[in-house]
Amino acid sequence: MGSIGTVTPQAMHFAEPLRLQSGASIGDYTLMYETYGTLNADKSNAVLVCHALNASHHVAGTYADKPKSQGWWDNMVGPGKPVDTDRFFVIGVNNLGSCFGSTGPMHTNPATGKPYGAAFPLLTVEDWVSAQARLADRLGIEQFAAVMGGSLGGMQALSWSIMFPERLRHCIVIASTPKLSAQNIAFNDVARQAILTDPDYHGGDFYEHGVVPKNGLKVARMVGHITYLSNDDMAEKFGRKLRNAAEKDDYAFDFGVDFEIESYLRYQGDKFSEYFDANTYLLITKALDYFDPARAHGGDLTKALSGTQAQFLIASFTTDWRFSPERSREIVEALVSNRRKVSYAEIDAPHGHDAFLLEDPRYMAVVRAYYDRMAEELSGELTGAAA
Amino acid sequence: MGSIGTVTPQAMHFAEPLRLQSGASIGDYTLMYETYGTLNADKSNAVLVCHALNASHHVAGTYADKPKSQGWWDNMVGPGKPVDTDRFFVIGVNNLGSCFGSTGPMHTNPATGKPYGAAFPLLTVEDWVSAQARLADRLGIEQFAAVMGGSLGGMQALSWSIMFPERLRHCIVIASTPKLSAQNIAFNDVARQAILTDPDYHGGDFYEHGVVPKNGLKVARMVGHITYLSNDDMAEKFGRKLRNAAEKDDYAFDFGVDFEIESYLRYQGDKFSEYFDANTYLLITKALDYFDPARAHGGDLTKALSGTQAQFLIASFTTDWRFSPERSREIVEALVSNRRKVSYAEIDAPHGHDAFLLEDPRYMAVVRAYYDRMAEELSGELTGAAA
Repeated sequence: MGSIGTVTPQAMHFAEPLRLQSGASIGDYTLMYETYGTLNADKSNAVLVCHALNASHHVAGTYADKPKSQGWWDNMVGPGKPVDTDRFFVIGVNNLGSCFGSTGPMHTNPATGKPYGAAFPLLTVEDWVSAQARLADRLGIEQFAAVMGGSLGGMQALSWSIMFPERLRHCIVIASTPKLSAQNIAFNDVARQAILTDPDYHGGDFYEHGVVPKNGLKVARMVGHITYLSNDDMAEKFGRKLRNAAEKDDYAFDFGVDFEIESYLRYQGDKFSEYFDANTYLLITKALDYFDPARAHGGDLTKALSGTQAQFLIASFTTDWRFSPERSREIVEALVSNRRKVSYAEIDAPHGHDAFLLEDPRYMAVVRAYYDRMAEELSGELTGAAA
Repeated sequence: MGSIGTVTPQAMHFAEPLRLQSGASIGDYTLMYETYGTLNADKSNAVLVCHALNASHHVAGTYADKPKSQGWWDNMVGPGKPVDTDRFFVIGVNNLGSCFGSTGPMHTNPATGKPYGAAFPLLTVEDWVSAQARLADRLGIEQFAAVMGGSLGGMQALSWSIMFPERLRHCIVIASTPKLSAQNIAFNDVARQAILTDPDYHGGDFYEHGVVPKNGLKVARMVGHITYLSNDDMAEKFGRKLRNAAEKDDYAFDFGVDFEIESYLRYQGDKFSEYFDANTYLLITKALDYFDPARAHGGDLTKALSGTQAQFLIASFTTDWRFSPERSREIVEALVSNRRKVSYAEIDAPHGHDAFLLEDPRYMAVVRAYYDRMAEELSGELTGAAA
């Protein structure tokens, strides 16, 4: 089991405008992507990995000039890893509107010659999937062995199974949900309000002012981060430990840092505000809020999934209170009602929603076993073809 | 069961400085308070009601000039109500540092002639109890029949039982906790960061600038409010209902309001930012974070409660995820270990942490039954004294 080694991102340009769910459309645009492994002769071993809020096309491997630039799912994707790049051709793609190279609000709006800013159209999960399908076309991939993702990435995988049923054999949805709850939306709106009311946001056109709404982004990330961790995990890692306990075992009696958890969260918030784009954050939280494939079917998820053809792996984590196992079970039940083939794993892991990104032997074993079966199918097909 | 009718707040001035836990002290200061019912001859029927984050001395009744100014616990306190003012003399007091009349950051600092602002000292739950004890002295109340409160108010009641064991016969702690968890502190720190980074905060001295950090307060209140409601309650009340559903059943595709829950939370945040003081919010969240009576006893809550003499009623609500029943049970167990008399009620109510303020037949019945027993004790004592 080795590392994927150094990787190089690629850019694919699309000249034809993409019509969006909002009714708007986005003119010519670029998608950044990376690939790992080798596409087989009949192009049947491709796996698309969809990313969540703050991730990108950089799923695995490192960049030559940055030894610490490991991909966000490097523990999952690589030679001999659960998603084995010795057998599968894996594609990571940065979504439209994101801030890691694909066309987004910080890029020049051809209509004005200035950065899009507030003029960048709002996108939905389905819009991202449409854009990804065009990329697949250009790469000559008619059908994916699997589309997979965690959290918001899982929503994209699920949308693939609905929008392009014949284009994926397997759909892998981890730590996700068929729709956000009122509480999920509420937390997202707190984050948005923090950004929107930051005077440095300038109505979305902060690029022209040479500033960044860092304070808003920081608060947004802090509140988001709390929802990614489990209560128990936070208690165990931080509890009520004081930051300055070594020096003096007492409270500071000011508004600086008293507790380790404050120090940790502020650091996470500050770090995030250094690299993430505020408009992207807003746009992605809206895509999360809007996701609700059952909506077009009177709220009936079974109906929404009735046209799917893929086989499914659904996985959830017991301590995930953002998208709890209950939410994954809704998907499973709707699929079972449609007599789809579904494997469901509810993994007892302490790390809350973040668990989908972390090393956990049981979790890794579940995904590995699923991909092993996929690989057998693949070689079976090849054998069948040769017979 | 009637209303308490119109009430009039009173002010008590204290000339002697109060030494605080931080080492600082606060010079002469004023406490606002209200009383309901009549103090009996031997001054044995007094009940002190301690308030939580955004409440005040105005516990029950209305103000003559404001018919809608009902006290925050008017459903609990009044003639014939669970805390029956026909039998008990109830005192509500606004804590030091709050923004409803007692001396706080918005008042003139005698040392500078300007508003305290950032110079107002940080306070602890124990400091509030010390100030309340002085008020009791001035009112001639040596021993309370009960000290009671919910949430942060419950922390004050618990501190009374530790700091002045002989001064209360009953201690009533509702929807509270012996200390905040890392997650509780994390949410408080998000709220603080929203306020502290609002440019209109001016390092706490915004009074002199004629502005108020409304955006920060709004975000702070929004995140707080989410933690007061239960996930299920929010789902039932709001779900994914669209704000504009009557006009057009579709998303807005902008950063305005899409969902009812957003509208509700933003409204709550805006309303709060109109009347609440930012420095008070910061100060009270720190008092919450600092509360940890077991800390002085190596983390041993049983030791911390070993000197208590009161009888206890502890109550919690099943859907309260801010201060869950588990946290109340910690208090119960520590009291039982000390062989104290404890009644514990775990009430199955849907409304999360807010349940302690709401009408719930089972909850009201528990408090009523407890006070009925207290009233019997009182009349028993009187009979005994007359014999």
